[in-house]
Amino acid sequence: MTSHKLILLRHGQSEWNEKNLFTGWVDVALTEKGRQEAIRGGDLLVEAGLLPDIVYTSRQKRAIITANLALEAADRTWIDVKRNWRLNERHYGALQGKDKAQTLAEFGEEQFMLWRRSYDTPPPPLEDSSEYSQSNDPRYADLGEDLPRTECLKDVLDRFLPYWESDISKDLLAGKTVLVAAHGNSLRALVKHLDGISDKDIAALNIPTGIPLVYELDENLTPIKAGGTYLDAEAAAASIQAVANQGKH
Amino acid sequence: MTSHKLILLRHGQSEWNEKNLFTGWVDVALTEKGRQEAIRGGDLLVEAGLLPDIVYTSRQKRAIITANLALEAADRTWIDVKRNWRLNERHYGALQGKDKAQTLAEFGEEQFMLWRRSYDTPPPPLEDSSEYSQSNDPRYADLGEDLPRTECLKDVLDRFLPYWESDISKDLLAGKTVLVAAHGNSLRALVKHLDGISDKDIAALNIPTGIPLVYELDENLTPIKAGGTYLDAEAAAASIQAVANQGKH
Repeated sequence: MTSHKLILLRHGQSEWNEKNLFTGWVDVALTEKGRQEAIRGGDLLVEAGLLPDIVYTSRQKRAIITANLALEAADRTWIDVKRNWRLNERHYGALQGKDKAQTLAEFGEEQFMLWRRSYDTPPPPLEDSSEYSQSNDPRYADLGEDLPRTECLKDVLDRFLPYWESDISKDLLAGKTVLVAAHGNSLRALVKHLDGISDKDIAALNIPTGIPLVYELDENLTPIKAGGTYLDAEAAAASIQAVANQGKH
Repeated sequence: MTSHKLILLRHGQSEWNEKNLFTGWVDVALTEKGRQEAIRGGDLLVEAGLLPDIVYTSRQKRAIITANLALEAADRTWIDVKRNWRLNERHYGALQGKDKAQTLAEFGEEQFMLWRRSYDTPPPPLEDSSEYSQSNDPRYADLGEDLPRTECLKDVLDRFLPYWESDISKDLLAGKTVLVAAHGNSLRALVKHLDGISDKDIAALNIPTGIPLVYELDENLTPIKAGGTYLDAEAAAASIQAVANQGKH
């Protein structure tokens, strides 16, 4: 049986991960630790003999530079590149720029977890006048009405899936090994779709940073092994626990 | 009058530039100096307020990483990317991997300069069995008969122009500011075409590394100012002199 290889890579630590702020569509840089995570991700691809033929990224530099560094480490910079806003992180609405611990203290755990993990409840929308708004960002000028002001995970899935269908799945079916360098929530949306995870169960799923998650897919692009395989399973398990604790310390 | 903006960027110093070896299609990395040149190139774009909408590169890492570093310095990593072998450096045939000074001593200045600067005399072809051949490189697997074993500048022009017509010129005419990150000879081919330089006069033209060369083009994609404008004219003049001396020391 032919299998199609899809590699997911969540960006390494960003400056706002480090500061424990809600980031969303704000275009923050990687920290030095995040850059090292990306390089390690590339090293893991080499160790596994996984050679991407094309890389997809969001329009956000923390994912783009993660891809650049990983591909440089894997000596695979020459492959084709596609960038699309549909792979961007979930828009965090009015929470963008806010401290997670402070938000938790201010609104209480129930509201906090609803905003963070509910499938279909977005935070309040971000005003276009906010310094954290993307309403005047030239990279999104062609989005028009599609430009989000806030999103829940369902919204991310709704804007991601058309791109999956139009581009990523076609490259997979054409026999290409595809690397997707993206974000916690755009990758959760993808994994939810691939593994058929319920709206409820997806709340508990966290994807660690910088560790390639490899899916082998059948001719219908259904995972041969549900959940895929992390290239460093031990580090992935430790990181998943740490992500789950975010905002609580 | 509408003008179209085209920015050319030759990659910074590579490991084989430093060792004074003929490189061509061998995929060598940038030196630390080369990486710094690339970052400086991005800084110059910012100072000039030049914001590329799309970047074109060869399939060779010295140009790709130059583009990555320059765009990171300019905070413009999110733009679209196109890579194509037609922007690769001139294939140097059997000279690839040879020391320039040694080649000069072995073959004499006349033959040496003929190989380096004659418009239509390629060096002897590289054997497919050579360690410096690209005949088994997966990135060029789809080239078939187009894969070069040696090239003169005329050959570079012949394989570059179809891509200029099919892709780069179309993006320019659509109003995009285009960055082309490439190589000494693929950029000489482009400049020869743009400025209508004769087969004889092109021999004397050198393009410095890491300094953006900006062309404003009219509606026929003819340069409004012949030769374009280097963003750091003084450094460009010094570098052109240094390149002209290559192989002579």
